[in-house]
Amino acid sequence: MSEKLKYGMIGGGPGAFIGGVHRAAIRINDEAELVAWADVIPEEARLKAGVDMGVAPDRIYGSFDEMAAAEGAREDKIDWIDIVTPNAFHYPAAKAFLEKGIHVVCEKPLCFTKEQGEDLKRIAAENGALFAVTYVYTGHVMAREARQLVRDGVIGEIRMVMGEYPQDWLLDALETITEDNKPWRADPKLSGRGAAVADLGTHIENWVSYVTGLQIEKLACNLDVFGKGGVLDNNVEALIKFKGGATGIYWTSQVAIGFDNALKIRIFGDKGTLEFVQEENNYLRVSLRGEPPKIYSRGAGYLTPEAKKYGRVPTGHPEGLTEAFANIYKDFAAAIRDKKAGKDIVEDDYGYPTVQMGIDGVEFFNKCVDSHEAGAVWVNIE
Amino acid sequence: MSEKLKYGMIGGGPGAFIGGVHRAAIRINDEAELVAWADVIPEEARLKAGVDMGVAPDRIYGSFDEMAAAEGAREDKIDWIDIVTPNAFHYPAAKAFLEKGIHVVCEKPLCFTKEQGEDLKRIAAENGALFAVTYVYTGHVMAREARQLVRDGVIGEIRMVMGEYPQDWLLDALETITEDNKPWRADPKLSGRGAAVADLGTHIENWVSYVTGLQIEKLACNLDVFGKGGVLDNNVEALIKFKGGATGIYWTSQVAIGFDNALKIRIFGDKGTLEFVQEENNYLRVSLRGEPPKIYSRGAGYLTPEAKKYGRVPTGHPEGLTEAFANIYKDFAAAIRDKKAGKDIVEDDYGYPTVQMGIDGVEFFNKCVDSHEAGAVWVNIE
Amino acid sequence: MSEKLKYGMIGGGPGAFIGGVHRAAIRINDEAELVAWADVIPEEARLKAGVDMGVAPDRIYGSFDEMAAAEGAREDKIDWIDIVTPNAFHYPAAKAFLEKGIHVVCEKPLCFTKEQGEDLKRIAAENGALFAVTYVYTGHVMAREARQLVRDGVIGEIRMVMGEYPQDWLLDALETITEDNKPWRADPKLSGRGAAVADLGTHIENWVSYVTGLQIEKLACNLDVFGKGGVLDNNVEALIKFKGGATGIYWTSQVAIGFDNALKIRIFGDKGTLEFVQEENNYLRVSLRGEPPKIYSRGAGYLTPEAKKYGRVPTGHPEGLTEAFANIYKDFAAAIRDKKAGKDIVEDDYGYPTVQMGIDGVEFFNKCVDSHEAGAVWVNIE
Amino acid sequence: MSEKLKYGMIGGGPGAFIGGVHRAAIRINDEAELVAWADVIPEEARLKAGVDMGVAPDRIYGSFDEMAAAEGAREDKIDWIDIVTPNAFHYPAAKAFLEKGIHVVCEKPLCFTKEQGEDLKRIAAENGALFAVTYVYTGHVMAREARQLVRDGVIGEIRMVMGEYPQDWLLDALETITEDNKPWRADPKLSGRGAAVADLGTHIENWVSYVTGLQIEKLACNLDVFGKGGVLDNNVEALIKFKGGATGIYWTSQVAIGFDNALKIRIFGDKGTLEFVQEENNYLRVSLRGEPPKIYSRGAGYLTPEAKKYGRVPTGHPEGLTEAFANIYKDFAAAIRDKKAGKDIVEDDYGYPTVQMGIDGVEFFNKCVDSHEAGAVWVNIE
Repeated sequence: MSEKLKYGMIGGGPGAFIGGVHRAAIRINDEAELVAWADVIPEEARLKAGVDMGVAPDRIYGSFDEMAAAEGAREDKIDWIDIVTPNAFHYPAAKAFLEKGIHVVCEKPLCFTKEQGEDLKRIAAENGALFAVTYVYTGHVMAREARQLVRDGVIGEIRMVMGEYPQDWLLDALETITEDNKPWRADPKLSGRGAAVADLGTHIENWVSYVTGLQIEKLACNLDVFGKGGVLDNNVEALIKFKGGATGIYWTSQVAIGFDNALKIRIFGDKGTLEFVQEENNYLRVSLRGEPPKIYSRGAGYLTPEAKKYGRVPTGHPEGLTEAFANIYKDFAAAIRDKKAGKDIVEDDYGYPTVQMGIDGVEFFNKCVDSHEAGAVWVNIE
Repeated sequence: MSEKLKYGMIGGGPGAFIGGVHRAAIRINDEAELVAWADVIPEEARLKAGVDMGVAPDRIYGSFDEMAAAEGAREDKIDWIDIVTPNAFHYPAAKAFLEKGIHVVCEKPLCFTKEQGEDLKRIAAENGALFAVTYVYTGHVMAREARQLVRDGVIGEIRMVMGEYPQDWLLDALETITEDNKPWRADPKLSGRGAAVADLGTHIENWVSYVTGLQIEKLACNLDVFGKGGVLDNNVEALIKFKGGATGIYWTSQVAIGFDNALKIRIFGDKGTLEFVQEENNYLRVSLRGEPPKIYSRGAGYLTPEAKKYGRVPTGHPEGLTEAFANIYKDFAAAIRDKKAGKDIVEDDYGYPTVQMGIDGVEFFNKCVDSHEAGAVWVNIE
Repeated sequence: MSEKLKYGMIGGGPGAFIGGVHRAAIRINDEAELVAWADVIPEEARLKAGVDMGVAPDRIYGSFDEMAAAEGAREDKIDWIDIVTPNAFHYPAAKAFLEKGIHVVCEKPLCFTKEQGEDLKRIAAENGALFAVTYVYTGHVMAREARQLVRDGVIGEIRMVMGEYPQDWLLDALETITEDNKPWRADPKLSGRGAAVADLGTHIENWVSYVTGLQIEKLACNLDVFGKGGVLDNNVEALIKFKGGATGIYWTSQVAIGFDNALKIRIFGDKGTLEFVQEENNYLRVSLRGEPPKIYSRGAGYLTPEAKKYGRVPTGHPEGLTEAFANIYKDFAAAIRDKKAGKDIVEDDYGYPTVQMGIDGVEFFNKCVDSHEAGAVWVNIE
Repeated sequence: MSEKLKYGMIGGGPGAFIGGVHRAAIRINDEAELVAWADVIPEEARLKAGVDMGVAPDRIYGSFDEMAAAEGAREDKIDWIDIVTPNAFHYPAAKAFLEKGIHVVCEKPLCFTKEQGEDLKRIAAENGALFAVTYVYTGHVMAREARQLVRDGVIGEIRMVMGEYPQDWLLDALETITEDNKPWRADPKLSGRGAAVADLGTHIENWVSYVTGLQIEKLACNLDVFGKGGVLDNNVEALIKFKGGATGIYWTSQVAIGFDNALKIRIFGDKGTLEFVQEENNYLRVSLRGEPPKIYSRGAGYLTPEAKKYGRVPTGHPEGLTEAFANIYKDFAAAIRDKKAGKDIVEDDYGYPTVQMGIDGVEFFNKCVDSHEAGAVWVNIE
């Protein structure tokens, strides 16, 4: 194994959920180590948390600006920065590091507006920086299998997509939210124009486009705000028309009692159907016309080479969320190494979701909000 | 047991699918016998088929008009007529018998227009005739359990409904359809303005309103015609807004590979969620807020008295489509007997789907087609 | 359709469960009608029940002896007798009718001893009488599919069988049983030496041998009597060695909380595996070596002709217990008609479980009890 | 966080499967680092592999003896040794490190004989060394939930246990095995007297005793050797009698087509039933008497505090094999830290499987082989 890569992180300190999962996923791969960290919490807590993460005190920062400046100036600067802050900071933080030529991994949704996203894409290109957006559910092995089966024409021409993503975690939160005490996901200033539509809806939109390559032509979307404490949308229904004639339904909810994190995508072609359920991520249901449905199992010998690339544990031994993140980081590390080795890089070839997918997600949720605000009418996506 | 009721049937002869299931369901109940039958097929075949069904030759007719006239004039006339013809004949046939004061059981969709439906309702009322529409999936015991749980407030105020009904049977038919050789379900003259939306969409619409009592305020609907032989819609997506603020998504398809007859309805309230899957009709998934999801099993001791009314075989021994029909016929026979006994009848109390539900279905699919033809825009339902 | 067959029934009166299901199944087929009935309940109740079943008063009897004598003497005697009494009456009742040359359908377990069973087989042969034992789970279409797949060599040579059949209905009964008030299934005088092992264990034994043709060489069996009211076995574990080298495990229980009627059989061959679950009787899981498991669906086009013979409702519309009985009666009626038409009959060709299967079941449960009584040691089956 | 622990590993080099999963699991926890490694492969390959793992060249060894001597003599010796070699080396390797007072984590089955196991237990006690056996499936959060529910009396007194563990990976291997080329799991010298019974059977035995506390009184076991290349058992059936009257069935297979790694344990009490399926390790099915079955979900608020201790990712985001290992290592690290802090340690309090459980497993599989060799007769366990 070549030398380990070095990375920094912004956010994801004590109390945050997703930062720790990112770090664990990177540790599983054992290809990179955390050497720098920034958060906006009080200095004492920050120092303790950073040292606990194994970061040297002089590389623990109180803001991303400070961090970008300091890291950008080092000889041994970080290979990439990991942005796991509330949404509002994604854009300025990514911008600051890209301008130093530092590669970026950013949580989704990428930013608030399509223009911000285009900006990031441009700056990345100008500075030769790679950019991954952690739509984690594309990291599951069976998502890769699904994508390859579509590319191999196994299900034929796609006619319809049914995407759903119900959760119920917000129910309790809803009733205790006050103006002074609300999760950032329920605060428009930190979260953006959309809540469920941005946080969850973009996962559907991305997974579908990642796996199928379909592009949305227009959509009609209704946003619901259920519960007395509700400020932003927590239940979303959208009709989709794709370029080329396929249609779709996307539904997501944060108040669907009895559903934990039930992302489920069904893709219907004229030769077959694929069905992926995140909570059963080690399986893919494949139905070909005139044949009984088949249950593909991660790790099995009959899978495509693309899916086998990510072999970690044998078939029947479950992998989960952490491995999905790890697969994306494995892709990203491969791209960084190739780049360092002087190769010409086409990011799409590496499998991780790109900044363009981040932009598409931002446009998607903004158009959903536009549609809703105009009465759930159809709006076009250029 | 009191004397058996007598019924007649129109349609459902050799080669037809659903008529035989109706007759088998009625035989399961053992409360009524078939004594008259009409179909428009050649006389010889008709006589043979009728006799095979156990009908006396003099009560085998070549048209519903002839049958209504003859039966209406008999002392020992049929208690009800069962209409299982292609859609186009539902209205005139029902009308003919209602005018003779003969009760009617009619397949869905009830007729072509809301006006026709209102007409039937009026004529039934004027002639003291009962009227059931065989939305068969309301006949499942666990549909009755779901309805009762909603009425008991178990899931609280309903916020959202997710209804889907994918099939794939049309795929092969699509490619062999010619102008001279098409199933009646694909022929607008026999089937009406809508195909999947009328045949399957009304099942979703009815099941939801039957179980929840929700009324649709407006909807936006897109109809797809996939496949080269397609004439009428075979894939349908609709967004729904109910009176009172709940929202919904209805999807149905006849070209969804890998799905046989997968009606699935999820009803989300602020206290809990119900999930019914037709292909697993002996179960109901009940999720209450903050509790693990529970799997209710038909026949179990913890069910409501309403569900227990329809006990046939013990828990764990599957019932299916035939019993669902039988339950509706059991309800209808009870109403007829009470009526004969001189009681005041409120049809809604008996559990079978009423003519009003038939009308609602007709309005639903017409509004869906209206919406689609105008560009999938929102249309109101009065 | 040719003229309807006539049948009589013993047992299955008010309060009994299974007799009504038999009658409903026969009505579904519409090939035969009930014309004679006997039960040992008081005359007034018996007359009412019989008339409710549609039986003429002069053919309602107070004992099977009386019935056999009277029916055997009629010109228009019944074509077959249906025996749905407690186990203790199976043997004498069947014998009485066989001696009159009347065909017999009998519930399982067939009788108390192998000798009784051999006796019935001999008497049937001597009198040219057909004999079916209603092991109902062989009547499911997907049981027929499984049998045909095995016969076609699809799963290769069978190595192992895993059969289980847990229920929990006895739990409540156990605690209220007294010497004066116990269900006949818990009374050795009416039920025989074994309870769960005879009532449920024989279903496993029969289904396996019906589908695979395997014959048991020896077995070791332990019987548990759980609960304070327990008299007979209510939980059974057996190891099986089949002739030819295959092995098996059979488990059944009446006190397995959370299981309604969960008969599940897995058959492992050197080329593939079949899995049948009674509660999901419309499906069969088929796994071939090196391929993803497939879910076969009743009614689908890819099934064997054998399974298609029993088409009743289209794929995706569930059938259940009643249709399983109906399929067995359909087989039996076909054999009777062929016999009446003077054809040479090989009962095994018709698909219904034969008297030999009944005998095998009786031997099985007796050997299980023998094994248990000797300390769960291995006992041979000749 | 306090300073990281240091550990060494024996085995698990290139081509091995499980060593890498252990290391990844330890990295997830981020509580310890690998600083020493030994394997018996050629020096060049060993050095490269060790350096790739991040081990300093002077702590990469060619034998466990050399390693134990060298590490035992260091000031900064490893806190524990991780033994992931073929079974034959477990005993001597563990012994060597225990004698240096170094804590041990060892794969299962622990060793070849009960005497070896007792020896290890004694030496560990004499040297104050902790000892964990990585029965990984006890590490799943829902295994901990199950154990706590049993301890809390939720399912009452246990009556019966149904444990199964079918796989099919050996099928292909079987046909290519030669005397010179066989996996160590099929080589009695490396693997021991039993194959499936030791490799998989002990997982069932351990999981059941870990969760329920039940002790086996006697067992009867049959071992099958299917396939032409078979040398050791690859299909195992056992009847179990536990002290106190409960009974059980254990089945495991390496040739069960269509099953990947399907460990499934059902525990039946007089108040309720628990069902755990390894391939769906984020769920536990809990059925209480008279109530509908409930599906418990890892991470949910209604779980016991014991299950919540291992929170990693939120409910609905799957965890898998790696987290199960990580939970055991988390337990073990906690015990080491407490020990280092001078506390009195009761290993059973920490949750990881102990050396006694390792001994129990060794006795279990030896008794199974004893039983089989004597004709599948009952053998006692003292």
